[in-house]
Amino acid sequence: MTITPPALSVFEALESEVRSYCRGWPAVFDRAQGSHMYDEDGHTYLDFFAGAGSLNYGHNNPVLKRALIDYIERDGVTHGLDMSTTAKRAFLESFQNHILRPRDLPYKVMFPGPTGTNAVEAALKLARKVKGREAIVSFTNAFHGMSLGSLAVTGNAFKRAGAGIPLVHGTPMPFDNYFDGTVPDFLWFERLLEDQGSGLNQPAAVIVETVQGEGGINVARPEWLRALAELCERQDMLLIVDDIQMGCGRTGAFFSFEEAGITPDIVTVSKSISGYGMPMSLALFKPELDIWEPGEHNGTFRGNNPAFVTAAATLDTYWADGQMEKQTLARGEQVEQALRAICEEQSGTRFRGRGLVWGLEFDDKPRATAVCRRAFELGLLLETSGPESEVVKLLPALTISPDDLDEGLRTLARAVRETA
Amino acid sequence: MTITPPALSVFEALESEVRSYCRGWPAVFDRAQGSHMYDEDGHTYLDFFAGAGSLNYGHNNPVLKRALIDYIERDGVTHGLDMSTTAKRAFLESFQNHILRPRDLPYKVMFPGPTGTNAVEAALKLARKVKGREAIVSFTNAFHGMSLGSLAVTGNAFKRAGAGIPLVHGTPMPFDNYFDGTVPDFLWFERLLEDQGSGLNQPAAVIVETVQGEGGINVARPEWLRALAELCERQDMLLIVDDIQMGCGRTGAFFSFEEAGITPDIVTVSKSISGYGMPMSLALFKPELDIWEPGEHNGTFRGNNPAFVTAAATLDTYWADGQMEKQTLARGEQVEQALRAICEEQSGTRFRGRGLVWGLEFDDKPRATAVCRRAFELGLLLETSGPESEVVKLLPALTISPDDLDEGLRTLARAVRETA
Amino acid sequence: MTITPPALSVFEALESEVRSYCRGWPAVFDRAQGSHMYDEDGHTYLDFFAGAGSLNYGHNNPVLKRALIDYIERDGVTHGLDMSTTAKRAFLESFQNHILRPRDLPYKVMFPGPTGTNAVEAALKLARKVKGREAIVSFTNAFHGMSLGSLAVTGNAFKRAGAGIPLVHGTPMPFDNYFDGTVPDFLWFERLLEDQGSGLNQPAAVIVETVQGEGGINVARPEWLRALAELCERQDMLLIVDDIQMGCGRTGAFFSFEEAGITPDIVTVSKSISGYGMPMSLALFKPELDIWEPGEHNGTFRGNNPAFVTAAATLDTYWADGQMEKQTLARGEQVEQALRAICEEQSGTRFRGRGLVWGLEFDDKPRATAVCRRAFELGLLLETSGPESEVVKLLPALTISPDDLDEGLRTLARAVRETA
Amino acid sequence: MTITPPALSVFEALESEVRSYCRGWPAVFDRAQGSHMYDEDGHTYLDFFAGAGSLNYGHNNPVLKRALIDYIERDGVTHGLDMSTTAKRAFLESFQNHILRPRDLPYKVMFPGPTGTNAVEAALKLARKVKGREAIVSFTNAFHGMSLGSLAVTGNAFKRAGAGIPLVHGTPMPFDNYFDGTVPDFLWFERLLEDQGSGLNQPAAVIVETVQGEGGINVARPEWLRALAELCERQDMLLIVDDIQMGCGRTGAFFSFEEAGITPDIVTVSKSISGYGMPMSLALFKPELDIWEPGEHNGTFRGNNPAFVTAAATLDTYWADGQMEKQTLARGEQVEQALRAICEEQSGTRFRGRGLVWGLEFDDKPRATAVCRRAFELGLLLETSGPESEVVKLLPALTISPDDLDEGLRTLARAVRETA
Repeated sequence: MTITPPALSVFEALESEVRSYCRGWPAVFDRAQGSHMYDEDGHTYLDFFAGAGSLNYGHNNPVLKRALIDYIERDGVTHGLDMSTTAKRAFLESFQNHILRPRDLPYKVMFPGPTGTNAVEAALKLARKVKGREAIVSFTNAFHGMSLGSLAVTGNAFKRAGAGIPLVHGTPMPFDNYFDGTVPDFLWFERLLEDQGSGLNQPAAVIVETVQGEGGINVARPEWLRALAELCERQDMLLIVDDIQMGCGRTGAFFSFEEAGITPDIVTVSKSISGYGMPMSLALFKPELDIWEPGEHNGTFRGNNPAFVTAAATLDTYWADGQMEKQTLARGEQVEQALRAICEEQSGTRFRGRGLVWGLEFDDKPRATAVCRRAFELGLLLETSGPESEVVKLLPALTISPDDLDEGLRTLARAVRETA
Repeated sequence: MTITPPALSVFEALESEVRSYCRGWPAVFDRAQGSHMYDEDGHTYLDFFAGAGSLNYGHNNPVLKRALIDYIERDGVTHGLDMSTTAKRAFLESFQNHILRPRDLPYKVMFPGPTGTNAVEAALKLARKVKGREAIVSFTNAFHGMSLGSLAVTGNAFKRAGAGIPLVHGTPMPFDNYFDGTVPDFLWFERLLEDQGSGLNQPAAVIVETVQGEGGINVARPEWLRALAELCERQDMLLIVDDIQMGCGRTGAFFSFEEAGITPDIVTVSKSISGYGMPMSLALFKPELDIWEPGEHNGTFRGNNPAFVTAAATLDTYWADGQMEKQTLARGEQVEQALRAICEEQSGTRFRGRGLVWGLEFDDKPRATAVCRRAFELGLLLETSGPESEVVKLLPALTISPDDLDEGLRTLARAVRETA
Repeated sequence: MTITPPALSVFEALESEVRSYCRGWPAVFDRAQGSHMYDEDGHTYLDFFAGAGSLNYGHNNPVLKRALIDYIERDGVTHGLDMSTTAKRAFLESFQNHILRPRDLPYKVMFPGPTGTNAVEAALKLARKVKGREAIVSFTNAFHGMSLGSLAVTGNAFKRAGAGIPLVHGTPMPFDNYFDGTVPDFLWFERLLEDQGSGLNQPAAVIVETVQGEGGINVARPEWLRALAELCERQDMLLIVDDIQMGCGRTGAFFSFEEAGITPDIVTVSKSISGYGMPMSLALFKPELDIWEPGEHNGTFRGNNPAFVTAAATLDTYWADGQMEKQTLARGEQVEQALRAICEEQSGTRFRGRGLVWGLEFDDKPRATAVCRRAFELGLLLETSGPESEVVKLLPALTISPDDLDEGLRTLARAVRETA
Repeated sequence: MTITPPALSVFEALESEVRSYCRGWPAVFDRAQGSHMYDEDGHTYLDFFAGAGSLNYGHNNPVLKRALIDYIERDGVTHGLDMSTTAKRAFLESFQNHILRPRDLPYKVMFPGPTGTNAVEAALKLARKVKGREAIVSFTNAFHGMSLGSLAVTGNAFKRAGAGIPLVHGTPMPFDNYFDGTVPDFLWFERLLEDQGSGLNQPAAVIVETVQGEGGINVARPEWLRALAELCERQDMLLIVDDIQMGCGRTGAFFSFEEAGITPDIVTVSKSISGYGMPMSLALFKPELDIWEPGEHNGTFRGNNPAFVTAAATLDTYWADGQMEKQTLARGEQVEQALRAICEEQSGTRFRGRGLVWGLEFDDKPRATAVCRRAFELGLLLETSGPESEVVKLLPALTISPDDLDEGLRTLARAVRETA
């Protein structure tokens, strides 16, 4: 396939320099279906990116599309703030029946505004309000969002510098395996908490991703997560799991923390919760934490009802039984085998992952970007992650067919070989 | 009309206590069309609220609905981050042709994430980055959003308290007419800026709403806005107009600052920009301010393409000529006459507004809430605003028919009388 | 008198560029007595500066000197942290008998470290601890010290910039007469407090100087101070009077707030409290505010016992009756007459003051510095104050003789004339 | 010796509850000489506390006393702000000749106000100004002072809580041996600095004590200090050594960092610099850092000239040759032997120290306080340190005689035995 760079005039002329993905993928996309995107010049791309984890059920999934169009056709409420609507009720009931009740999760549900960073802001506010403390502990290479509250607990120095004010009230701790197993888990964190002279402001909460997506596909072990949950309990800190990128089945189970057998105090969900790529997010928390006053946190688009419709459809369609989880784990094994083969063939590479989120790391860091560029030329959408963009990130739709998955993995292997 | 409170069980059982509108309007809404909403029990409500200003073109506007369904039907890209898409191009071209070019506005366009608070966070970041200073000046009774950056420049004490940390780097100044004209405009602000001993940290920017919607429908005079713009220029501060609620024609012209003849350095737009109630927002700024690095601010849902489609349709349909503005001003006169009549009849009331945003203030502050409650019983949706909820806020769709408008105004007058 | 600039080699070579007074007064001082200083070249200077208000009883006052040498000779404890000592007891008893009891002031006494900024830091800590709020209101052109807590409530932009971090948690309000009487007192401040949408973080306390020494000899009227005290009471804010420069008799009465008939919640005292120019400071507060835990605030030199000895001697010698106050007021009239004469003679000048603190302001701002420079050449030590150094500040020792005072005032008049 | 608690009426009635040492040592002290203090009831105390390190040359040292009285007698300038004086010149010359030049230290000298916390505030300001960054790294169990800037880099949770605002811009790192040698030095710190995704705000400076006095007599090894200095250089951070308690010969050499062979960028000195217990402090820094504007940091008592006189006398008397250092090390060996004997006899104890600063730690933490209490009854002044007051701190005057030292060590041993 040969790709001719399109004339991007209006984008270049009018859109801010802040635009980013369009630079690495110089195409003008027009349509999308399942695991494929199509540009206006007729090129087809296999998508191993899935809207940065927002399209777990593929582009324009037909089941969801049907429900969405029906809803729009019949003039269902589109914009509802936090009014009660039939669409919201249907979502809440499906969420209760298919997600919360089977997992014995006692959560209250908050609609904090339709983006991930809104959910994180709400979670941090609530934790601070409940505990009456300002400090939050986050982890190295965490990513939680770009508004000031979320950015203060995000690790990336380049993104932090954009704040324009000193980002405070957050302290980073080492994520699992930060020292390759040479230092006992939580040695530093626990010592700081126990030492009355340590200088650490006592945290209201700890916020963690079970797999750090932007941070380089760093996978926390279940035992590390359990030890963290116990530490939080022992030290009177709330545990917030940010499941925005890893939730909704990305790691197999609906919530990524299920495997560890923990029950976080607060959970943030977004990206794939609507299933159709429409903005929606949730903050979930134990009922005893629900000390919000009516309207104490709000937001114009927190009642994005078309998203509730597709969200309910995902739950009814994919989460009424355990098939989705099984399939994801099976597809994950397929990925793992392919990555193992690549790493055996190519020195200076390493892979890691869970479910259908995988990373391929290069000692020669710029090569990860070269691989993604070459993959694009070969019709495969892949992005990098990690503090120095040294990891190729694989995030195919959970609904990808084994054949498409195989094709993409072969293209990846080729791109790796051709950049050696 | 008699309204039976529905069984709200799943809402009460599962949804957080933070929910708010559903308490004042105890119905379960199902469908909506134009200026009407319908609950599941078959009741009809005339909507003078318009999604808090997000539905300037009415609910499920048929023109936009057609474009939206066509786009979904043909599998147009739904979720696109900041990839270039044909839908984004169409929006940018319409925005350039119908909005920016005819007004000689030189702005670059940023998609900062699809909610208003995302746009404000991006605007504040950019202003601080450009000027290398942290401080921002806002105004009494301002509302700019609920994430930490936006909340710090928001006035409401109850909302601020939710932050759980001290909100700093912002200083409030008196909004227009804060002292009923007894104090010269900007006397205090300008003196603080000029006095090297004043203790004010030199601001990077000033953020202002031309009409404060949440703050009580406080209308800034054009001459006040012009003086503010001149002060900003003289004192090397950027002027940010937050046009999230008042933009997209709410006050008549597309941008609410057009009447004053000023060109703000940065403008935030959201709420009605998509026209259909779908999450979307923009930050606009002068090209010389576009010093963002690629990806320095980002967000998962900044490429909500269905919203781009309906947004472009609003521009092509309503903003290709001056009809919309004329109609809004005409409808505004209809509102003004009705409010004048109410105030003449009822002592202890006052009204104010511009275009199709109006406020009816009660000296007996709780009465505003009583009026809205009674209006709801009479089938009219109205909310209060102001620091003590002392103002009934009128925000009908711009597309409302004269008859519907008249009916709503008569219902309002009745609710006022019946709560006297 | 002709003055030859001395060779300042070791000062220039070794001392930091931060040094300041030595630049305006290029002499090497050796001895001092009463209102006179002597440099190593035999020149004599009449001192209208009095250690920036630290030498109210003159240099090396013989009564205090005797007590001090006796104490040192007999090996009295010099350094005592906060141990109980006989010298501290003597001071506390004198302070109770001569100062607190006759004025019916109920204060507890804290020794917070021997400098003014230590006292302010302690006062702000205590106010925040008592009220559980972070925000402090200060006034335009306030000066409270250079450590971070004090600097945040200090107005001077140049000094604030030295902090190297954004100074937050403080909001400035207009000092008395900031708008030449055209705006009602506290109009802005009170409105911000009462408006729940104002955006002002509710203050724990207000800190004020009754006469702003560094800020330009701005004199608050007694009725303004009373209104401020009432506002604080009404709005549940503590009132802190920083009497570091204006206390110890500088304005006539021992405390500068006595004239207004108010009882601040917290008072800071330093500078002239030891009487001999030795470091000492006090924080005084109402007993119900004394919620400190033992050792919660400390400092190495808070028990500077030789200072306690001279401090007790000042109280026993000068404050056992009302003579000191009467004499200060009489000397103040002498200054006032002289300044009136100067201002009548020289256009573009204004004067103001109370007791023995006076300011002579020049419309032609740099002239104030020129006057001080010329005065130095004529053997008179005078410094400027105000945000642009536009005010010549007169701070003679309270013990100055009428003849010395007259001589200095004549020298000042000459310097003014010769810089016209 | 039997001690009758004195009637502390005026202290109890008038002095704030914040007082601390007077509670552990319920005597009213009157006189002091060398290593002894005398209370008003005629009891004698051997002083192993030395004004918390402010009396390295003993109480009322006769050589300094002579110089001080001569200066007072001849009416030398007492209070001089930052005017040039003959006393300051004499101090600067002695400091240059006896301290800086023989050690090849290139420092400029700043008089930042006469207390330790003033010096730390000045050092932090300067570091931030030079580097244009806000963040400072400090160490676990650090103590740097009680004003807000210094407190933010102090570890003790109880003292930090007194601030009343969140203390930010500081991040603690593990001090030497924090993990008993099980974790490589600077593993965590260096990794955070190198990882662009770590979330650590890039520090302007690191502030460290070579021996943590308040923190529990934690002694940094020379190789750790050297590695820290190298890390600072490599990572473009300034190194600030806070030598307030450990400088002026306490560890043997004049500066405590000499043994490690490093040259910090900034050094703070206070406590024993005047030698006589009078308030004085210095900030020293490399000349290229001297970017202060005149008067950018100031303070009323930064020219405490009597302290300059005794300070110069200490340098001329004790630091013109290497005798002082030798003697301190010899006395230190005497202490070490005695502590070794105590620890061999008593299980659950540990000791550590350098020069004449030593700590005796008890596994049974409250016992340290019991030992100090019993020692007081036996006529020996000793205080505890460490985050839980679990360490008995030995800080005798450097000038203590071998016999007095021996007597104190025997009393300590007895107190330890009697509290077993």
